[in-house]
Amino acid sequence: MSEIRTAALACRDAAAQLAMLDTDARNALLRSMAAALDTNSDVILAANVRDIDAAQARGTTGALLDRLRLDRARLAGMSAAVRDVADLPDPVGQVTRDDVRPNGLRVRKVRVPLGVVAMIYEARPNVTADAAALCIKAGNGVILRGGSEAIHSNTAIADALRAAIAAQGVDAHALTLVRDLRRESMLELLQLSDIVDLAIPRGGEGLIRFVSEHARVPVIKHYKGVCHLFVDASADPAVALALLVDGKTGRPAACNALETLLVHADVADDFVPRAVAALRERGVEVRGDACIASRAEGVVPIGEDDDAAEFLDLVIAARVVDSLDAALAHIRRYGSDHTEVIVTRDDASAQRFIASLRSAVVMVNASSRFSDGGELGLGAEIGISTTRLHAYGPMGLEALTVERFVVTGAGQVRTPV
Amino acid sequence: MSEIRTAALACRDAAAQLAMLDTDARNALLRSMAAALDTNSDVILAANVRDIDAAQARGTTGALLDRLRLDRARLAGMSAAVRDVADLPDPVGQVTRDDVRPNGLRVRKVRVPLGVVAMIYEARPNVTADAAALCIKAGNGVILRGGSEAIHSNTAIADALRAAIAAQGVDAHALTLVRDLRRESMLELLQLSDIVDLAIPRGGEGLIRFVSEHARVPVIKHYKGVCHLFVDASADPAVALALLVDGKTGRPAACNALETLLVHADVADDFVPRAVAALRERGVEVRGDACIASRAEGVVPIGEDDDAAEFLDLVIAARVVDSLDAALAHIRRYGSDHTEVIVTRDDASAQRFIASLRSAVVMVNASSRFSDGGELGLGAEIGISTTRLHAYGPMGLEALTVERFVVTGAGQVRTPV
Repeated sequence: MSEIRTAALACRDAAAQLAMLDTDARNALLRSMAAALDTNSDVILAANVRDIDAAQARGTTGALLDRLRLDRARLAGMSAAVRDVADLPDPVGQVTRDDVRPNGLRVRKVRVPLGVVAMIYEARPNVTADAAALCIKAGNGVILRGGSEAIHSNTAIADALRAAIAAQGVDAHALTLVRDLRRESMLELLQLSDIVDLAIPRGGEGLIRFVSEHARVPVIKHYKGVCHLFVDASADPAVALALLVDGKTGRPAACNALETLLVHADVADDFVPRAVAALRERGVEVRGDACIASRAEGVVPIGEDDDAAEFLDLVIAARVVDSLDAALAHIRRYGSDHTEVIVTRDDASAQRFIASLRSAVVMVNASSRFSDGGELGLGAEIGISTTRLHAYGPMGLEALTVERFVVTGAGQVRTPV
Repeated sequence: MSEIRTAALACRDAAAQLAMLDTDARNALLRSMAAALDTNSDVILAANVRDIDAAQARGTTGALLDRLRLDRARLAGMSAAVRDVADLPDPVGQVTRDDVRPNGLRVRKVRVPLGVVAMIYEARPNVTADAAALCIKAGNGVILRGGSEAIHSNTAIADALRAAIAAQGVDAHALTLVRDLRRESMLELLQLSDIVDLAIPRGGEGLIRFVSEHARVPVIKHYKGVCHLFVDASADPAVALALLVDGKTGRPAACNALETLLVHADVADDFVPRAVAALRERGVEVRGDACIASRAEGVVPIGEDDDAAEFLDLVIAARVVDSLDAALAHIRRYGSDHTEVIVTRDDASAQRFIASLRSAVVMVNASSRFSDGGELGLGAEIGISTTRLHAYGPMGLEALTVERFVVTGAGQVRTPV
C-alpha cells in the first residue's frame, strides 16, 4: 500500500476514536493543543526562520513573505484562536429534528462528524493550526497538505499539536501532515474516495482548479470572490460611500473585498465624482467606463478582463448601469457567486436584489467585508464555500458535520404479516 | 458549442426563472404536470409498449421487464405522486437562522434552490416524473438522463411534462431530457461543472461507479445497501423475528432490505433455529457460518463474498458473534453505511450501537424497511445518499436546496475610519 493511503487509513481509524469522544474530551484536546503551541514557540519560530530564509533566497518579498512570517504575537494569536474554537458550542450530537411518526417510530436527525477532511492550502502556516482545531473539534480526522514554502513551519506546528493529542491518550494520526509534497502524492490523496470524506482547497486559482479537476473525493471549492457593490437610485450616498471605501480598502487582498462598483444612472452625477475622489484619495485605481470617466478625474479606461477580475489589490472596476435589472444582469454574468451588496432605501429593490441573485452572501446596506465566519457569528471559519452544495458562503463547525437519522421503535414492521 | 452544453445552459436559464416563482406558482406547475400525465396516458402507454417490445426482443424477462412496464394504474400512481409533491411544504425561502449581531447586522440563513440537478438513472420510467417533480418543486432545473431501455417511455413522459410547463408560461427547458444516450454524451454532462450543481446517479453499481469516476460536477452517490440486523443478548425474540422477516422478505430488491443477520452468542441456541425456520418457510436461502449451521436445518455454508454482498434477493448471510463489539466490527468492515438495525432491550447497547456506527440510518427495534423518505416523514425522496456530505440517508426536498446568507444592515462597515 502507498504511503499516503496508509497514512489516510490511520487517520480514518483515529477519526473513529475522535468521534466517540464527548464534548469535554474534545475541548480538552484543543486546549492542550493550544498550550503546545505556546510551549513549543521557540521550535516553531526557528522552523519558520528556515522557511523565511529559503523564501528570501528564492527572491520572495512583500505580501507573500509577510504571509509566511511568524512572530511571538502571531503565534500567540494562533494558540488563542485554537482556544476560541474550544469555547465554541459543539455541533456534534446536535438534534436538528425529533418527531414521532403516526406508527410510533421516533425519528431524529443528529449531527455527526464528516469523517476525514483533507485540507489543501498554501502559504500561511496558521491554517495548519486553525484547520486542525476546527476539524478535531467537530470530531473529524484531518489530513493537512500545506505548501512547500511553509513546510518547516507546518511540520513544527503539526509535531507540537500531534504530541499534545497523543499526551491526551488520543491517536495522533487524527492530525496527519503530508510531508511528501510532490504533485503525484496530492493526486493520490484526491483519489482516496473510500477514505476521504471531503477535500477543501484554499489558495490561488491554480490550486483550486487542480484539485477540482483531479479529485474523486467530494470537494468544496473556495473559489474567487468578485464582489459587487450596487448603488441603487434610492441609496443613501453617505452609506454608499462608507461601504465602498470599507469594501475596497479595508483589506484589499481578502476574498470579500469589493472588486466592482455599479452605480445607478439616476445618481451617477452626484455619486460618481465623490466615489472616485474618495477612492483615489486612498490610493485606489479606478477603472471606469465612459460614464464614470466623464464624471470624474483620473479614471483609467476599463479593460476587457476587468469586469470578471479579482484584483485583490487597490484597483476597482466601475460602471454606470441604467437600472437595477441591468446591475443584476451584470452581476449574474461576471460575478463569482461569493458576496454582493446593494445600497438602497427602497425595500422592493432590496428584495429584488436578494431574490434575483444566487450568490452565497447577499448584503443590504452592509459592507462586503462582513462576509466572514467570525463576523457572521459562526465563531471561526474553515473557509468560504462557493460550491452550491452542503455549505454555501462562510463555513463554520456545523459545515464539518452531516446530519444522519437515528430511529427508535418498539418492533414496528413496514409490511405486517 | 456541443448539444449537451447548449441544453444545459438553457436549463440553467430556465432554472433561474423557476427560482423566482413563488410557492403557489411552483405548486400550480406541478399540478398541471400531474394533469398532463393523465391526459397523455394513451401516448405514454403506447410509447411504453415500444420499450417493452424492444426489451422482450432482446430477451428481457422477469423483474427487469416488470420494472419497465407501465399500465393505467401505475400511470395514475405516477400523477398522484406528482400531486403529493405539490402538497408538500415548500423548502425554498425557509429561514433556518435569524439573529442580530452585536453591531446590529441582521443575519439570516435562507434556503435557495441548488440550481441545476442532473439525474442519471436506469429502468423505471416513473423516476422521470418523480425526479422532475421534486427538483422543480424545490426551484431547480433538472436534466434527466434515463436508460436506453426506457427511452420511448421517458420521452413521452418528458414531452407531456414539458408541454404542461410551457402552458404555465414557464420555460420548458427547466425539464431537459437527454435523448443522446451515448456514453460520450453522459461524460460531457458530468464535466459541466460551471453549469450542473449536483449529479445524482441512481441504478446499479456499474452506473454509480462510472459517474463517480468521471464526474467533475458534485455527485451524491446512492450506493449499495448492505443492511445489517443485530440481535443483541437482551433482544425480545418476537421483535427480532418480526424485524428479520420484514427486513428480508418485505421487498428483497429494495436497497433497505436486510442482507446480513448477526446474532449474539448468548441467544443463538434459542433464536437461530426459529430465525432460520421462519426465513426458509418464506423461501429465503440462509448462508450461515458454522455456529448457524450447527443450530438449524438447511443452512448453506457462507461464502467468501457473502459478508459484503447486496443480494437484492431472497438470500441472507448469517453469523453468530460473541459480543456487541464483534457485531460493530463486522458492520464497520463489511457494511455500506446505509442502514443498520439493533434489536435490544438494553439502552446502553442501543446507545453504543448508535454511537459506534457511521451509517446514514441507525435503527433501534425497527425494521430497516423504514429507511425511506416517505416512511421517515420527508414526504417523497429523490434517493438515499450514502455520501457523507450535504445529505446522508433518505433525501427529500430539503436536500435539493442549500442555505445561503442574507445580511441586512444600516450602513455598517468593518473597519471604521
